[in-house]
Amino acid sequence: MPIVNLDHISANQLLPEVKEAMISAIREDLANPSSMHRRGEQASVALGAARETVAALVNAKVPREIVFTSGGTEAANHAIKGTAWANHEKGKHIVTTNIEHNAVIRSLKRLKSLGFRVTSVSVDASGRVDPADIEKAITDETILVSVMHSNNETGTLQPIEEIGRITRAKKVIFHCDAVDSVGVVPVDVQKLGVDLLSFASNPYYGPTGVGGLYVRRGVRIFPLLEGGTQEHNKRAGTENLVGIIGMGKAAELARRHMDARLDHLTALRSKLIAELPRAIDEYIINTNLDHALPHMASISIQYIEGESVLLMLDDENIAVSTRSACATGSLRASHVLLSLGLSHADAQGTLVIALGIENTPEDVDHFLEALKKTVTTLRDISPLYQKEKKDGR
Amino acid sequence: MPIVNLDHISANQLLPEVKEAMISAIREDLANPSSMHRRGEQASVALGAARETVAALVNAKVPREIVFTSGGTEAANHAIKGTAWANHEKGKHIVTTNIEHNAVIRSLKRLKSLGFRVTSVSVDASGRVDPADIEKAITDETILVSVMHSNNETGTLQPIEEIGRITRAKKVIFHCDAVDSVGVVPVDVQKLGVDLLSFASNPYYGPTGVGGLYVRRGVRIFPLLEGGTQEHNKRAGTENLVGIIGMGKAAELARRHMDARLDHLTALRSKLIAELPRAIDEYIINTNLDHALPHMASISIQYIEGESVLLMLDDENIAVSTRSACATGSLRASHVLLSLGLSHADAQGTLVIALGIENTPEDVDHFLEALKKTVTTLRDISPLYQKEKKDGR
Repeated sequence: MPIVNLDHISANQLLPEVKEAMISAIREDLANPSSMHRRGEQASVALGAARETVAALVNAKVPREIVFTSGGTEAANHAIKGTAWANHEKGKHIVTTNIEHNAVIRSLKRLKSLGFRVTSVSVDASGRVDPADIEKAITDETILVSVMHSNNETGTLQPIEEIGRITRAKKVIFHCDAVDSVGVVPVDVQKLGVDLLSFASNPYYGPTGVGGLYVRRGVRIFPLLEGGTQEHNKRAGTENLVGIIGMGKAAELARRHMDARLDHLTALRSKLIAELPRAIDEYIINTNLDHALPHMASISIQYIEGESVLLMLDDENIAVSTRSACATGSLRASHVLLSLGLSHADAQGTLVIALGIENTPEDVDHFLEALKKTVTTLRDISPLYQKEKKDGR
Repeated sequence: MPIVNLDHISANQLLPEVKEAMISAIREDLANPSSMHRRGEQASVALGAARETVAALVNAKVPREIVFTSGGTEAANHAIKGTAWANHEKGKHIVTTNIEHNAVIRSLKRLKSLGFRVTSVSVDASGRVDPADIEKAITDETILVSVMHSNNETGTLQPIEEIGRITRAKKVIFHCDAVDSVGVVPVDVQKLGVDLLSFASNPYYGPTGVGGLYVRRGVRIFPLLEGGTQEHNKRAGTENLVGIIGMGKAAELARRHMDARLDHLTALRSKLIAELPRAIDEYIINTNLDHALPHMASISIQYIEGESVLLMLDDENIAVSTRSACATGSLRASHVLLSLGLSHADAQGTLVIALGIENTPEDVDHFLEALKKTVTTLRDISPLYQKEKKDGR
């Protein structure tokens, strides 16, 4: 029985055309784009073509504003650390939100230990930050604002365009972590008014381990990886050309099929949300459905643990994820869910459903059926659930 | 006519077995190793197997001392910046040599601009550093020594084992940039006594854009890329699994065939060096042939420019490299060659020949013949050469 993949946030399959492009690059043995002889030229042309396609996906003015990286994490580390060290003489203050990805949070934590100050603005119960709160947090010392485009656990979108207007008026560099959005929903760096934008390739069915950073021309930033002159002197190291070619192909397809994919995913999620009450009760939807990526739904199911549901669904050949990160044996609830006001117990019962372009209405039916069985089984053996029921809740 | 590749330092072809391993990983669509469900487990097993193979190649005690990176440049940046920031409270002094790769030089330059001090020890005319000079440069403030295993322009090997004894006695962290050595000659981190060792995959016919950093257990170092818990918390970001699998296969083959490759390459280079005087005169061999990688020869040909030779050889379907980096239009001589005592003019006439395992004695013959023709043509049109000859030099 084939696996029903509802975990399109961390393990996206490669599109057939992407596979073919990568396999062809491997077979052709494209050389190092920096070599001066003919084999280097072929590689350089392929690199340039991928850069143009990716630039078009985010509407960069010129392709050289795109820096290829080893993924979204490198892009975010580069954006934050590179800006901080390049501008620390102007000020050492950075503004962010309390629901960012760990790549942003841990980069900022590192900078804090080295003398920077960070203001972390809270989101509201719906999971969105108020642009006015960002504006209030900016001081004369602020050199950077970093706010994510969509949250990786809930899919909730942030008011980036409004924040972009503020950072432009205040002349503060604005980094947007758009790893889960680029290639999934329209992302236009001109419209958003961002200076730096991190993204990856896997969210739109390209390879893992490759991503990019949009750097608006004129933004003061140091490279994170220094050495050779690759990537217009912004990121040293011989390129992962096979990965970049795969990303270029995925970007081309994402742009061409974006509307159709959006329609398909939106319809599947609507079905899921509409039919969920027939499968289970006592749950919380954490995703802000009015402002969200089309394919995601974060659901906290009360009285059970998400990890247990995940493992039982795995036995039913259904892949989902939880985001209650399990660190060295001790279960730690997600900082994102806690910041929405969830209790630790409810946060532990969370499943993240991330639909993909190959999913069908039948997949949703299969999931709902398996979920019903799983949740019933788990609650039957939950002392807490039994007690609550006995007490007549 | 097929290209004769004598540029095995920047553009190595993938071995057929490496191609097959990568293609198979793409076709199987291995998922994210961090996913908890079954698809993640398959990926995790593949990642672990590659780590074991690479650990064996450098003789790490345990596989988890290997951190996969996006290449040699990231590994060197990680080693240097990660050590500096993790130990800056102990001291801010770093010792290195004046012939390091730009990944090391530029990382150190960045640290200097942020308050660190760097002592750069000179090499002798044969291109080797004296361990006693390293010892003299170490002070109570020294937190790191960084010396390359072999030079990327000349192939000359450094006395790493002797330096390792010094750094151990002085309890200073020792980083060795072994990008051009690992997989080519035996490199044993226990024997060398290094704490950190940077390496890549392409020098032994694995993919570009993937490499590794050996981190001896207990060494105090910060991650360069922060976020998720990948790579035992030492390097965040979803792995480039296709590249890592290719690197693992290349490492396995490098270990198995190292002796045979060494014999083959040593014989080819001996032929090249022995027959060179029949092709050209007035040249300097920059490689220290008593202490060098088996496949490299750096040759400075007087009265001509290396770039011109490279382009003319390209027309003859021969790929070589020069290392007189051409930065923004202005020719700048290599810092490595100048540090050996070469004049700017001689440095400009340099070719780097890097033989590969597929090269044959016929390739060497073909190269020598083409070189003779090229050098004759270029000297015939060189006013400087004509003047020197007329003056009876």
